[in-house]
Amino acid sequence: MESVDLRAARTALREAAPLVHCLTNTVVQTLTANALLAAGAAPAMVDAPQEAGDFAALASAVLVNVGTVHERTAEAMRIAARSAGTAGTPWVLDPVAVGALAYRTALAAELVTLRPTVVRGNASEVMALAGAGAGGRGVDSTAGADDAAAAAAELARRTGGVVAVSGAVDLLTDGSRTVRVGGGSALLTRTTGAGCALGALVAAYLAVTDDPLAGAVAAHAHVALAAERAAVTAGGPGTFAAAWLDALDAVDGDTLAKADVRIAG
Amino acid sequence: MESVDLRAARTALREAAPLVHCLTNTVVQTLTANALLAAGAAPAMVDAPQEAGDFAALASAVLVNVGTVHERTAEAMRIAARSAGTAGTPWVLDPVAVGALAYRTALAAELVTLRPTVVRGNASEVMALAGAGAGGRGVDSTAGADDAAAAAAELARRTGGVVAVSGAVDLLTDGSRTVRVGGGSALLTRTTGAGCALGALVAAYLAVTDDPLAGAVAAHAHVALAAERAAVTAGGPGTFAAAWLDALDAVDGDTLAKADVRIAG
Amino acid sequence: MESVDLRAARTALREAAPLVHCLTNTVVQTLTANALLAAGAAPAMVDAPQEAGDFAALASAVLVNVGTVHERTAEAMRIAARSAGTAGTPWVLDPVAVGALAYRTALAAELVTLRPTVVRGNASEVMALAGAGAGGRGVDSTAGADDAAAAAAELARRTGGVVAVSGAVDLLTDGSRTVRVGGGSALLTRTTGAGCALGALVAAYLAVTDDPLAGAVAAHAHVALAAERAAVTAGGPGTFAAAWLDALDAVDGDTLAKADVRIAG
Repeated sequence: MESVDLRAARTALREAAPLVHCLTNTVVQTLTANALLAAGAAPAMVDAPQEAGDFAALASAVLVNVGTVHERTAEAMRIAARSAGTAGTPWVLDPVAVGALAYRTALAAELVTLRPTVVRGNASEVMALAGAGAGGRGVDSTAGADDAAAAAAELARRTGGVVAVSGAVDLLTDGSRTVRVGGGSALLTRTTGAGCALGALVAAYLAVTDDPLAGAVAAHAHVALAAERAAVTAGGPGTFAAAWLDALDAVDGDTLAKADVRIAG
Repeated sequence: MESVDLRAARTALREAAPLVHCLTNTVVQTLTANALLAAGAAPAMVDAPQEAGDFAALASAVLVNVGTVHERTAEAMRIAARSAGTAGTPWVLDPVAVGALAYRTALAAELVTLRPTVVRGNASEVMALAGAGAGGRGVDSTAGADDAAAAAAELARRTGGVVAVSGAVDLLTDGSRTVRVGGGSALLTRTTGAGCALGALVAAYLAVTDDPLAGAVAAHAHVALAAERAAVTAGGPGTFAAAWLDALDAVDGDTLAKADVRIAG
Repeated sequence: MESVDLRAARTALREAAPLVHCLTNTVVQTLTANALLAAGAAPAMVDAPQEAGDFAALASAVLVNVGTVHERTAEAMRIAARSAGTAGTPWVLDPVAVGALAYRTALAAELVTLRPTVVRGNASEVMALAGAGAGGRGVDSTAGADDAAAAAAELARRTGGVVAVSGAVDLLTDGSRTVRVGGGSALLTRTTGAGCALGALVAAYLAVTDDPLAGAVAAHAHVALAAERAAVTAGGPGTFAAAWLDALDAVDGDTLAKADVRIAG
């Protein structure tokens, strides 16, 4: 991989307006939907087992986020992931707090066998999912993204997909190639659901790019650049969220092309 | 119908502060509650089957929105709709994504037989509910409001109530009279839950007006005017949402009386 | 009690960044998480029965809010409350709309026997929980905080904890000592979830103070001061919410020490 055509990815997202089926936690549904709308995608949250399979087959991409998972939504996630696999629809697994809690850790391990196109999490979650660590204390990572580099590469080889580790500098790998995305703002970590919305944006970009690593990189770069812009005008963590949505909308292809993306291998 | 007394409706809403019982999707609960509070109503979200019947009987109006419906909430919706009917409490059905998914399409068809005071949706949803179309790809309509005029009128005659179709220009009908409401802002369609919050505001206005068509028109005019105001100051889709809530509060009877309301028949 | 060291409590909260396990209603999860983040705490919403016990034992404090409770989440709440009790972890009960609805009233009565460290509610809810009144019409209180003074003291003696009654002036008591907290803004009552987020902040402060009454007072003072600041810049109820989060972050120990806290006995 010599470069990622961020400009083309941004333009394709706006033109295609991909329908992203989100099975995600109830804390972040609103921000996730608004982030997708701001970027130019079309969100839909459908998490009944009776509907998840049909809708995943209809959608352009699927997000599975286990943040507030329970019995019914776990079943809907299994059905949606299988349906996406059968339909050849790209899907993202966000293993929120995996490692810290046995129930979701078992579920995430099962979902990994369905081969998500991208796994996106923090270092603790990725290490736990790869079997390389016991996880953090919930949603916080107690390690940096690069600490999870080996676990991420191993997990990516196992799924045949991409693993994206969020941190001050994000690390993304498909098991052979590695890309780092810098920039962003610490205010992202003080906005509930910013990381979860990133997972949804990864799904949106997967729908409009051929190379899942390139799609995942575009989403991370988009989120980071928008956060930098929003941090300039925000008066604190509360006003940051709305400013970040405005900036997700405002960042165009030319702006995105200037993102801090470093390709290694 | 020669005119709608929008000024009186706005004043009555503030004075009565109607309690609106919302059984709605988890993506939009916060915006819906805040829109009701901004307008002067009192929201309450209660969706346990054990409580939905008692609370619907207590409330001034009820909203049933199937956006993220599943087995438990479907049961609560059936109970609440029946309770509202028995108590003579006005209620609104918002058939989100009906037509695209079999489970909710069957549920909405069942709820229609309970005769909602108002059905509010986009053109695709209303056509699907009336049996006149296959529906859109989820939450988006692939048709304009006027495309659904015949289906809306037929559905209104079947329920004995009002059907409101959202679009660039909204179309509302009770099967004989038709009213169009213009204005608004495209940013409403980029704010998750704005349409769902409109459904809740329709319920609030039903509680304070004698004519359901007039109540539904007042809610649509209120939302449209507030959106126009908010669009002036918003920096994008993120800051628009809060500005729209501020404007829902600020729009008074005198302002609402100037809304773009066109009565035909 | 001669004084509450608000400065020390504020500093301790930022330094400890306590993990607050919230089992709360779906309407307010986002604002609750963002309020905790703004204040310097770490939120996590986990409400599956399979996980609630393990997570309550891991957490620094637990919030149980029955706003949208149903069968599964009621079971998770029972498990979490028992687990917190066994682990010696402080926990807060927010009896939203108790008194108005039989199902949650019975659940809250059961949870009270598990001896919450703090009960936080409005006057109607506290009176209903103490058996001294029939409750309001849902989330609104039809009485002032001082009307619930006797019921609050009786309830506090029964649980061995603290009872906090929200109102224009808040009243907090452990059955012998009484503290009132003034200030705040009427815009808090027009922001869905502000009271619920206060309950979560009480939990956060309990984790970093030895005296539950002092911790509860610090949370109420923090919320009130931040609301006063936010009201100055807000353009209405919509922009108030984000400004309040900014202010929760900005209020430091020196500022908090100036809060309107009146100790009686």
